[in-house]
Amino acid sequence: MPRKHIFFDIDNTLFPTSHFLERADENAINAMISKGLRCDFKRALRELQAILKEKGSNFTGHFDLLVKRINGKRDTKIVAAGIMAYHNTKNAMAPYPEVPVVLMRLRDMGHCLHVASEGVEIKQWDKLLRLGLDMYFDKVHVTKKKDRTFYEKILKSEKLKGKECMMVGDRPDKDIIPAMQAGMYGIRVKRGKYAKEKGKSDKEIKDLRELPNIIEKL
Amino acid sequence: MPRKHIFFDIDNTLFPTSHFLERADENAINAMISKGLRCDFKRALRELQAILKEKGSNFTGHFDLLVKRINGKRDTKIVAAGIMAYHNTKNAMAPYPEVPVVLMRLRDMGHCLHVASEGVEIKQWDKLLRLGLDMYFDKVHVTKKKDRTFYEKILKSEKLKGKECMMVGDRPDKDIIPAMQAGMYGIRVKRGKYAKEKGKSDKEIKDLRELPNIIEKL
Repeated sequence: MPRKHIFFDIDNTLFPTSHFLERADENAINAMISKGLRCDFKRALRELQAILKEKGSNFTGHFDLLVKRINGKRDTKIVAAGIMAYHNTKNAMAPYPEVPVVLMRLRDMGHCLHVASEGVEIKQWDKLLRLGLDMYFDKVHVTKKKDRTFYEKILKSEKLKGKECMMVGDRPDKDIIPAMQAGMYGIRVKRGKYAKEKGKSDKEIKDLRELPNIIEKL
Repeated sequence: MPRKHIFFDIDNTLFPTSHFLERADENAINAMISKGLRCDFKRALRELQAILKEKGSNFTGHFDLLVKRINGKRDTKIVAAGIMAYHNTKNAMAPYPEVPVVLMRLRDMGHCLHVASEGVEIKQWDKLLRLGLDMYFDKVHVTKKKDRTFYEKILKSEKLKGKECMMVGDRPDKDIIPAMQAGMYGIRVKRGKYAKEKGKSDKEIKDLRELPNIIEKL
């Protein structure tokens, strides 16, 4: 097969994002309780989830509001302890175990690897650096919304044809279907909370270990 | 001696701030060079210092501007690597070696310990938590500017008299003189870049180990 451009989603494709975000929240809650948040773990988690739902994930004062609601007043020491524990957990994040070996194999096969991700470019590079995966990728493409237009823009800016490219991700709605609409080959990793969702793809895999063989046979 | 309220400055009093900030910048530069910043260490450090001087320390785009100036274009991967190395260094910060033992001794003696600091309250708690010193302090008082008014406000809000209080810090202009003007006892730690500066104080010490004895004799 000729040199291919392979695009990867990051969250829940290269590493178990949901897993780490949950652990980060849990560790933050335990740290806040140890510094004076006056409730048990279960109630704090329930309240935090309510705040996340109410305010959205871009709100920056989740812990501050949590402390205020539970203790009846603001307490910057407790909030600082929560933020520190949250970031310490996030700093410990690691890729799915097969990922580094597979990415290296794909590079050795002569392919060019990209990231195609929803979010802010510097934050995605930060994730790749923390995961120790930055060296495998030539470029990070970001967008506010992963739709057909996003994948078409990538093809145009990189001067590529859809048939030279494949997209690998866990979400049919954001990774696979719009990439296929733009002419790419869509490989769906059936893992995490979207594993059972319906949606067409060119190929379904359980984890990334199957990728080199699939690409070789194309 | 009756129960005293002892106020501490944080930076360069409880831990060698300048030392860690310099290491953080140096580690950030090395990380950025390893990810593609096209210059040697010395030039990068010189350029960064120029940017810090030009833009001030509250500017948030130092590394971004550095990469743009040296490589001729923005590169979020390099910037992300710099920011990560910077924070990893800051996360490793530790107090001056004698500090935890002295603070514990002062607590055992029945004194009440506070922080009196320029900055944002949550950031100061974050420092104390990272330094492992948060448990020694009852309260963090912050201000934009450490002048006489700041110390007078503390006395008023805590319902304390100046003679019940002492302030410990490295800076004559911000820690010692204005606290003494407000009626506190001023103990100057002669350490770091202000060690040679002139300025009166009630007592001068070389490090915090002398504190318990001084306070006992008052």
